[in-house]
Amino acid sequence: MKIDGKAYRTIWPSADGRAVEVIDQTRLPHRFEVLTLHDVEDAARAIERMVVRGAPLIGATAAYGMALAMRADASDAALAAAYERLFGTRPTAVNLRWALDDLRALLRPLPVAARADAAWRRAGEIADEDVEVCRRIGEHGLAVFREVFERKGQGPLRVLTHCNAGWLATVDWGTALAPIYMAHDAGLSVEVWVDETRPRNQGAALTAWELGRHGVPHRVIADNVGGHLMQHGLVDLCIVGTDRTTAQGDVCNKIGTYLKALAAKANGVPFYVALPHTTIDWTVRDGVREIPIEERDAREVTHIQGLDAAGEVVEVRLTPEGSDAANYAFDVTPANLVTGLITDRGVCSASAEGLGTLFPDRAVAS
Amino acid sequence: MKIDGKAYRTIWPSADGRAVEVIDQTRLPHRFEVLTLHDVEDAARAIERMVVRGAPLIGATAAYGMALAMRADASDAALAAAYERLFGTRPTAVNLRWALDDLRALLRPLPVAARADAAWRRAGEIADEDVEVCRRIGEHGLAVFREVFERKGQGPLRVLTHCNAGWLATVDWGTALAPIYMAHDAGLSVEVWVDETRPRNQGAALTAWELGRHGVPHRVIADNVGGHLMQHGLVDLCIVGTDRTTAQGDVCNKIGTYLKALAAKANGVPFYVALPHTTIDWTVRDGVREIPIEERDAREVTHIQGLDAAGEVVEVRLTPEGSDAANYAFDVTPANLVTGLITDRGVCSASAEGLGTLFPDRAVAS
Repeated sequence: MKIDGKAYRTIWPSADGRAVEVIDQTRLPHRFEVLTLHDVEDAARAIERMVVRGAPLIGATAAYGMALAMRADASDAALAAAYERLFGTRPTAVNLRWALDDLRALLRPLPVAARADAAWRRAGEIADEDVEVCRRIGEHGLAVFREVFERKGQGPLRVLTHCNAGWLATVDWGTALAPIYMAHDAGLSVEVWVDETRPRNQGAALTAWELGRHGVPHRVIADNVGGHLMQHGLVDLCIVGTDRTTAQGDVCNKIGTYLKALAAKANGVPFYVALPHTTIDWTVRDGVREIPIEERDAREVTHIQGLDAAGEVVEVRLTPEGSDAANYAFDVTPANLVTGLITDRGVCSASAEGLGTLFPDRAVAS
Repeated sequence: MKIDGKAYRTIWPSADGRAVEVIDQTRLPHRFEVLTLHDVEDAARAIERMVVRGAPLIGATAAYGMALAMRADASDAALAAAYERLFGTRPTAVNLRWALDDLRALLRPLPVAARADAAWRRAGEIADEDVEVCRRIGEHGLAVFREVFERKGQGPLRVLTHCNAGWLATVDWGTALAPIYMAHDAGLSVEVWVDETRPRNQGAALTAWELGRHGVPHRVIADNVGGHLMQHGLVDLCIVGTDRTTAQGDVCNKIGTYLKALAAKANGVPFYVALPHTTIDWTVRDGVREIPIEERDAREVTHIQGLDAAGEVVEVRLTPEGSDAANYAFDVTPANLVTGLITDRGVCSASAEGLGTLFPDRAVAS
């Protein structure tokens, strides 16, 4: 998407084709800085330090990391070492493993001399494929937006989103934000309510930043506000991403998503979830019972980072000394609260039947 | 309640009886400081600057402010000037007007020489009456807690609360927190989930502080977390305060209360609201339609205050430059989401009928 008029991806090969450049997301929203990754160690650290985040972008970065490793040393030993180094960065990310397995399977049978170019090409393809998947989500979502817009009869379309499922989490377009960008670019008047998304504030820091740079009207709100807005007809639809979607259409997404889905249901506001089909976990049915929820460091709740009066990014403590905090990172929104799933293959109801219409080969009995 | 073993109120006469002392709540949770109010101007500024906050405490401070004014000059002109000065501090607070009217009605007919002592006595009575009202709320709430505890069959009783309806908002005990203190003091095992309550963080800053100082086990959570906790049986009951309760039992409380009430309803968790009967607005029925919701400065969302590494309280910016924010301060929880109202007169259902049983003189037809 655009940053103040200039088109960017979140990751791209450097001009000389010897390195990879990424937007340093640890500096957002207060600094826009591009970081150059020269070797596999740079790529691994970028993933570990969350310079890049979001499952699709992590996958693309890992693929480029393998390519950078092959440029330096394309031996079997180097291939194995690069795989291990990158795999260890964030072991639970599905796309990370998928991208690494893809590259390894491609490279192993090749002669050593051919590996670097093949890896580089394939990394580029993985990035392009992600852009295409998100573009399709955006197009299917845009059709949904147009429907809601027509029912409403006039603009602006007021959309509420939670966390960051934007282009910063992918290579371009994003998932939940893709239809928003497409609607905006198509001249449909869209205004976005951005949940700040405590405790890590991905909404206030990343979603607000990327919407602002592309020129999409938006307002940041505390996570407490969505219910009131929906109660008063100030939200026309909600759209969020998902980290994991079950075979019956439950969605596991950033903590707080469930509360907004409850408010949407109670107030008749459509609640959509946008996802690449790769987030569907066909082995899980009941998300609330089966998906373990990650508990993260309490410090993410007790402390927060921001820009001080001197223009420095500093961390401050919010809670009294001696007060402990709990930090559950995700929650599960049951399928019955979800109006529809917007995938790269089309839109379906959040149910085994619905998913069956788009993925007949994977469908499970309801 | 206790601060590290020593009993405090939020406001009390100084040892020499010539001034009033208050806990400076603008410094919490990072500093515990007591401020001395020497005259009516000090009292007015304390209310304006939110050194004291919470409707009952504002009322008590205003009463003491009138007493301080009478000590300096008990003339009719001084009485009128003190009333005006104090009334202008936070014009919308119901208890402020009530306390000022009470004092003025008492003092006007008295000889000038008798006014200072009478005002001082009456201010003390107002403070004591508030303590008694909160104590009764606590006792009625404790009976509710015992019931839930017995149904559960074992401890701890896990209670979720939102914002600060604690003793810091009143003179002592608090409203929603009064039953928690009574349960804790009675040896009932209670653990409190404290919503941080963005954007002003009254939960993380005030509720966590006062629970911690009194020794009540608690954990701070992001406002996003309560739904997940309730979905997984980790909350036995919710209890919150209310700024305004309608004649049919709707409650207007800090923004985000509604979302927690929705989650409680969806998961069969009892949701109680604690209130002094003075917060009931008998002229309002439908809270969602009739109560105007205050929009506050966007800066409360875009910026936050905390303790930096050097031990200084500083403000930092959270959002990107150019991103606007919306800041709705309250929301309305419809009566059908409320399990019961815990008042100083007893517990009733959140309905015109329920309120009619406790307040037969004020009851309105349903």
